[in-house]
Amino acid sequence: MRTIATLLFPQFELLDVYGPLEMLGMFPDDFRLIMVAESDAPVASTQGPRTAIDARIDEMDPAEILLIPGGRGTRREVSNQRVLEWLKNASASAELVTSVCTGAFLLARAGLLDDRRATTNKLAFSVAAEHGPRVDWQGSARWVWDGKFVTASGVSAGIDMSLAVIRDLLGEDAARDAALWSEYVPNTDPDNDPFAVSEETIR
Amino acid sequence: MRTIATLLFPQFELLDVYGPLEMLGMFPDDFRLIMVAESDAPVASTQGPRTAIDARIDEMDPAEILLIPGGRGTRREVSNQRVLEWLKNASASAELVTSVCTGAFLLARAGLLDDRRATTNKLAFSVAAEHGPRVDWQGSARWVWDGKFVTASGVSAGIDMSLAVIRDLLGEDAARDAALWSEYVPNTDPDNDPFAVSEETIR
Repeated sequence: MRTIATLLFPQFELLDVYGPLEMLGMFPDDFRLIMVAESDAPVASTQGPRTAIDARIDEMDPAEILLIPGGRGTRREVSNQRVLEWLKNASASAELVTSVCTGAFLLARAGLLDDRRATTNKLAFSVAAEHGPRVDWQGSARWVWDGKFVTASGVSAGIDMSLAVIRDLLGEDAARDAALWSEYVPNTDPDNDPFAVSEETIR
Repeated sequence: MRTIATLLFPQFELLDVYGPLEMLGMFPDDFRLIMVAESDAPVASTQGPRTAIDARIDEMDPAEILLIPGGRGTRREVSNQRVLEWLKNASASAELVTSVCTGAFLLARAGLLDDRRATTNKLAFSVAAEHGPRVDWQGSARWVWDGKFVTASGVSAGIDMSLAVIRDLLGEDAARDAALWSEYVPNTDPDNDPFAVSEETIR
């Protein structure tokens, strides 16, 4: 049984969180989902709906898997030292650290993606180098798996990334079942990116 | 400005709710999202994460659009007279009533889909007639739009259905922008159902 801790912050993007958790949450014998944040209060998404918190980041037990969403709120969180410090520590003890969309900017600001390949939302790609000058940002990738870090492209790409995590940890059949049950047509090829941008976008 | 009220109940399915709300929530000048339930307490999804409530169904103002998700909890809610009564009343004053997955069973139990075409999750299709004997259940449909009722197939189909709603209410460009921004490859054809079942499944 692995714990998956999802970091929430004000103005997180709904689908960045709940696309992956729909898929990962289908395996309650394998994954326990907890929602974590800086404080105990419910956290409002960019779109409005609020999610209740299970543990504060300063009191939680180490989690095997982290999920870091993007959303408008990342613009503030990239300068939030408490969150970046937690990310560094929590990542050190985690088995897998995943991000969706601009969630990668938080990993980059924490220095966790230095000298690694990573990706993010293609519409935010032009500012990626600013957040991670030493990151090898990939302009064409549905998701990128480098060491323990798995970064997904924009919003919906998190669903495909989560199915790749299920495939890796629980096997091909589990990933296929999750997609079938949720009537989702998965993109199983990390290099098949319908939203690819030229890597010159970043320079 | 239209209010979109999403009904939550214990063990609602995460993506049934947050797939459509990701898309609809991109238009805050057009749609206001509120989460409603029988009581004020946060509501736990099938997968675990809990959503905070904005209004109780017995105190809320009429909403122009309803979103009724599915999930394991529908097995209990199909017999919940308070919820079914609310559904009847709220639908009467609504402009559009949408459901995802087994959420259609609640509409069917409230009698709202009688003599209408509708669909649901294809893995639950064999029990559809039990919940709605007078509904013309469609075994091959990504979503079905009949009058003010728009029923989506399983889980992920709700995303495509929500883009159809955006197309209808806000125009083609808005729907295209929402898909592009969230890096989602939409299925824009309601008759293109990769998970279709024979209609004999139901008999």
